[in-house]
Amino acid sequence: RARLRRLVEDRRFQNLVIAVIIVNAVTLALETSRDIVAGYGGLLHTVDYIALGIFVAELLAKIYVYRGAFFRDGWNLFDLVVVGIALVPASGPFAVLRALRILRVLRLVSLVPSMRKVVAGLLAAVPGMASIAALLGLIVFVAGVMATKLFGGIVPDDFGDLGTSLFTLFQVMTGEAWPDIADAVMERAPMAWIFFVVYILVSSFAVLNLFIAVVVSAMEE
Amino acid sequence: RARLRRLVEDRRFQNLVIAVIIVNAVTLALETSRDIVAGYGGLLHTVDYIALGIFVAELLAKIYVYRGAFFRDGWNLFDLVVVGIALVPASGPFAVLRALRILRVLRLVSLVPSMRKVVAGLLAAVPGMASIAALLGLIVFVAGVMATKLFGGIVPDDFGDLGTSLFTLFQVMTGEAWPDIADAVMERAPMAWIFFVVYILVSSFAVLNLFIAVVVSAMEE
Amino acid sequence: RARLRRLVEDRRFQNLVIAVIIVNAVTLALETSRDIVAGYGGLLHTVDYIALGIFVAELLAKIYVYRGAFFRDGWNLFDLVVVGIALVPASGPFAVLRALRILRVLRLVSLVPSMRKVVAGLLAAVPGMASIAALLGLIVFVAGVMATKLFGGIVPDDFGDLGTSLFTLFQVMTGEAWPDIADAVMERAPMAWIFFVVYILVSSFAVLNLFIAVVVSAMEE
Amino acid sequence: RARLRRLVEDRRFQNLVIAVIIVNAVTLALETSRDIVAGYGGLLHTVDYIALGIFVAELLAKIYVYRGAFFRDGWNLFDLVVVGIALVPASGPFAVLRALRILRVLRLVSLVPSMRKVVAGLLAAVPGMASIAALLGLIVFVAGVMATKLFGGIVPDDFGDLGTSLFTLFQVMTGEAWPDIADAVMERAPMAWIFFVVYILVSSFAVLNLFIAVVVSAMEE
Ligand code: NA
Ligand code: NA
Repeated sequence: RARLRRLVEDRRFQNLVIAVIIVNAVTLALETSRDIVAGYGGLLHTVDYIALGIFVAELLAKIYVYRGAFFRDGWNLFDLVVVGIALVPASGPFAVLRALRILRVLRLVSLVPSMRKVVAGLLAAVPGMASIAALLGLIVFVAGVMATKLFGGIVPDDFGDLGTSLFTLFQVMTGEAWPDIADAVMERAPMAWIFFVVYILVSSFAVLNLFIAVVVSAMEE
Repeated sequence: RARLRRLVEDRRFQNLVIAVIIVNAVTLALETSRDIVAGYGGLLHTVDYIALGIFVAELLAKIYVYRGAFFRDGWNLFDLVVVGIALVPASGPFAVLRALRILRVLRLVSLVPSMRKVVAGLLAAVPGMASIAALLGLIVFVAGVMATKLFGGIVPDDFGDLGTSLFTLFQVMTGEAWPDIADAVMERAPMAWIFFVVYILVSSFAVLNLFIAVVVSAMEE
Repeated sequence: RARLRRLVEDRRFQNLVIAVIIVNAVTLALETSRDIVAGYGGLLHTVDYIALGIFVAELLAKIYVYRGAFFRDGWNLFDLVVVGIALVPASGPFAVLRALRILRVLRLVSLVPSMRKVVAGLLAAVPGMASIAALLGLIVFVAGVMATKLFGGIVPDDFGDLGTSLFTLFQVMTGEAWPDIADAVMERAPMAWIFFVVYILVSSFAVLNLFIAVVVSAMEE
Repeated sequence: RARLRRLVEDRRFQNLVIAVIIVNAVTLALETSRDIVAGYGGLLHTVDYIALGIFVAELLAKIYVYRGAFFRDGWNLFDLVVVGIALVPASGPFAVLRALRILRVLRLVSLVPSMRKVVAGLLAAVPGMASIAALLGLIVFVAGVMATKLFGGIVPDDFGDLGTSLFTLFQVMTGEAWPDIADAVMERAPMAWIFFVVYILVSSFAVLNLFIAVVVSAMEE
């Protein structure tokens, strides 16, 4: 077990895994091309299986080495999930999982120290954002219920039910296409501009403060 | 009165009110679905009435306990307004008030301490923004009058009267759809690009400084 | 002359001028409505002439009081220009000047101390921005010449001549409608995505640094 | 050689080169107009050749003066490339190089000290951005492969192959036109909103942190 540990923690072993990930990223990228799959599909799948095999062996080795401690590290759980996705038979309702195999490439983040540090820094900013994010969620929810009630009958494509309204308001919050949506609503409800102007001002102000929370948390480091 | 005060200030009592708000948020959200209203409309309305009753009782108790001091706290006035909306008969011109009942859910903000702190922080930034916001308002107003005079006859849909122009210029300020608007105007008034470029540069610069005022005020805390 | 000076510097006199500006702003805003002009056009014009008379008298008094020093203050020159616009006969090629009369309302900025301070703060940030703004201008110019050469024959509406290209690239820089423009170009020149991606990355980076220059200059105060 | 060095380092000589660049910028800008080329094409080309000759002579002089040291300064290499472009015969597949001649004007940046300082400042921020930029690239790559797999068959115009998907996702990241793209996809794959919302949130968060890295690096100076 100690020997396996030395192996797993060896920088060269990690570089090998990084190389396998990069090769696998290339094969998964090539697999998006129908022509290449037609010509070299068999080869690509073989490489993909080998890569998967190496990842599974690596994770099993780590689990054997670290035992319970393995499962207490968030990065390991992430590795486990993205590798595990490939083991679920991707048929029927799970066909979408086929497309998720590329998530494996994100393992690079946990293996390259400088990226790992960046993501750790990003995640460190999350708790400071939680309250404002919750407030923002509450604003969007309240606006969504209100918009469904007010505009659902007028523009069902954008506000027909609560889910649709929430997605539309998310679009408005990203600053996209809101004049078109507002025009469609205002044709039948001319005062609707009040709703849009208030929603945009309030949600922009909240998003701005979300940004500030991230900046302040970054500065404090 | 002292006993009622102990009750009102009890953390468990506040948690009960929070729970009622969340339940009420769910029923109001479900009410946006025609199918669910058709099947369970009666139940939803009953829960809504009960929740409203609890809110009214809670506010009356607080008024009885704190008397005049109740009305000097902004959060209480906010609670009073959003609960009061539901008591106005929502018929005829007041039909829109029905949709505003969801605002009640924003009471969460005043009851959850971490959200209350966030909103207090946001509001603290407002005075520092007042002068720049007034300047921005002045810029939009001046640009609106000018645009109505210059382009009102050319593109009445966007600049037909002062109100329409102000709404259009607000859209331009959010960075939306201005190339389409500018193209429509420039077909007949080719020099109009000067207006749009100057307006966008000046208003972006003012908005940027509005943001900076918020950031600086956040940093000072 | 000393007495006139006391008058001109009297806070009450300045408040009177502010009141006249606000009244004039209202009449100029009302003038944008064809219906109101049809009914009360004469009255509006009379008020406008009286306001103009007061502004001219005020500026003449200030020139008499301060002599040469008057012309060394930027705010005074601004006042002189925006009031002077109204004295040019607005006919023929100068018809556009009619619409510029509303600029007079911006005199509020120089008369209300808190706004004056805000604008002074904004202007103080300008020198720190000059080098980056010049760089940004150079980037847009170079990109404009290049785009006219490369895409002028393909999409003349967007890149037909240098002026059109510069306006299009300004639109792209504000993040507007560039996918449509890029699609139109790429139909005939599939490699054009390189131009758009590089231009957007470089100009965003320069704009970001322009913002930072403003923030840093604001922080230093 | 010492005399040539004095000449090359003379401020007046550098101002002459700056003047030549500006004249050349004007002739290259005029060349974008078909009418002007028809009338004065010969003159413009002559000026262009003279300017090119001066640049080549200047660079040869510098290479003679500084020898190997010349090639160790990034600015010199930049000068060499943008001047060298004009020496490649711009015919056949190299026709695009004709349009790149305008890049010469960017030599202003290395010759005007204040601009040189600004660009040096911008470049100094790049290393601090490298890790986050790599992470962002990885996110876009993974999302691109996934989107091609999931949506390639539904909306081939936007996600038909990996290159198209990456360009589409770059557009979405600049906040452009994503509601249209999402609508087209969601007509056939209603759950696709999950992909878009997650992608927008994750990429915005990464871009925000890229910005913060620039701000922090600017502050540290
Ligand atoms: Na946008
Ligand atoms: Na946009």
